[in-house]
Amino acid sequence: MPVFQALESPTFRASCELCREPGGVLVFQSAQWRVIRAEDAAFPAFYRVVWRAHVAEWSDLPAAEQAALMGVVGAVERVLRDTLAPAKINLASLGNMVPHLHWHVVARFDWDSHFPAPIWAAPQREVAPAPVTRLRVRLDELDARVARAVAALAPAA
Amino acid sequence: MPVFQALESPTFRASCELCREPGGVLVFQSAQWRVIRAEDAAFPAFYRVVWRAHVAEWSDLPAAEQAALMGVVGAVERVLRDTLAPAKINLASLGNMVPHLHWHVVARFDWDSHFPAPIWAAPQREVAPAPVTRLRVRLDELDARVARAVAALAPAA
Repeated sequence: MPVFQALESPTFRASCELCREPGGVLVFQSAQWRVIRAEDAAFPAFYRVVWRAHVAEWSDLPAAEQAALMGVVGAVERVLRDTLAPAKINLASLGNMVPHLHWHVVARFDWDSHFPAPIWAAPQREVAPAPVTRLRVRLDELDARVARAVAALAPAA
Repeated sequence: MPVFQALESPTFRASCELCREPGGVLVFQSAQWRVIRAEDAAFPAFYRVVWRAHVAEWSDLPAAEQAALMGVVGAVERVLRDTLAPAKINLASLGNMVPHLHWHVVARFDWDSHFPAPIWAAPQREVAPAPVTRLRVRLDELDARVARAVAALAPAA
C-alpha cells in the first residue's frame, strides 16, 4: 500500500480533513490526485478520487486539470464495471461537509441496502451475508486493479 | 423556450422517460445533449444535463463526448456560482432509476432543507418562505443565463 503524503502547497489547510488525512484506504497517489477506498460496509466497492490541492469546486480547476481528474474517475468506473458487473455506477462530487474537491465512484447492486435509491437516502433492506462477500473479487484484488488502471494516468513526477 | 425533440437514433427506447420526455423545463437542446431545469420546490436551482442518445454509464461515452458533456456541466455550474453565490455546488450522475446518462447540477445553500446533507437524504429543516424567493434572480432569468452559457458550447448542427 502506498503511504499518504500531505501535499506541501500554499493551498494546504490544517482544518480540512482531506488535506490532512487520506480519507480512506490509500490505493494510489499521484502528484495531482489520489484514489482511496472508502471503508463502507454497506458499499464495499466505493472509491474516491481526491484532488490533492485544496479547491472547493470542480469548476475551480482549469480545463486540463478537470480532464485529468475525470480521466481518473472514468478509469476507476471502468475497473468497477469490468470486474464487478454492477447494476449501475454512481458518480458524485458533493463536498457540503468537506469542501475539498473529491469524486465518489460507487458500484451499486440490485441487492444493496439502498438500491435503487441513492446511497445517502434511507435504506430499503437489510443485507446478509455481508456485502463484501458478494463481490466477485476480494477487496485487495479490486484495489490492485484500480491502482494499476490509474497508475497509467499519473502525471510524470 | 425551446421545444423538446426526441432524438431519432437507434438508441431510442420508448420505455425510457429521458428518451421520451424532456425530464423538466427544457432550457437548451443541442444535437448531443440538453439542459433542463428540474422542477423541485426545495431546490429551485437544480439543473440536469442529459445526454440525448440512450447510454447508461458515463464511461460508455468516448473521451471526446465525455469532455463535451463535462464542459456543459461546468458551464451550468459556473452560471449557478456566478449568479447565486451558493454555499456549494453538488454534481452527480446516478441513474439507478432512469439509467439514461444525465448529470445533476444543484446549487446548495446553508438555509436549504437538507444542507449539508445530500439532497437525497432526510430533510433537516423546514424552509419558509419558499426557497425560490430566496434566490438572487428569478428562475426565468437564471434559465436564460444558463441557456446563453451552454449555447456557446453546442456542436455545429
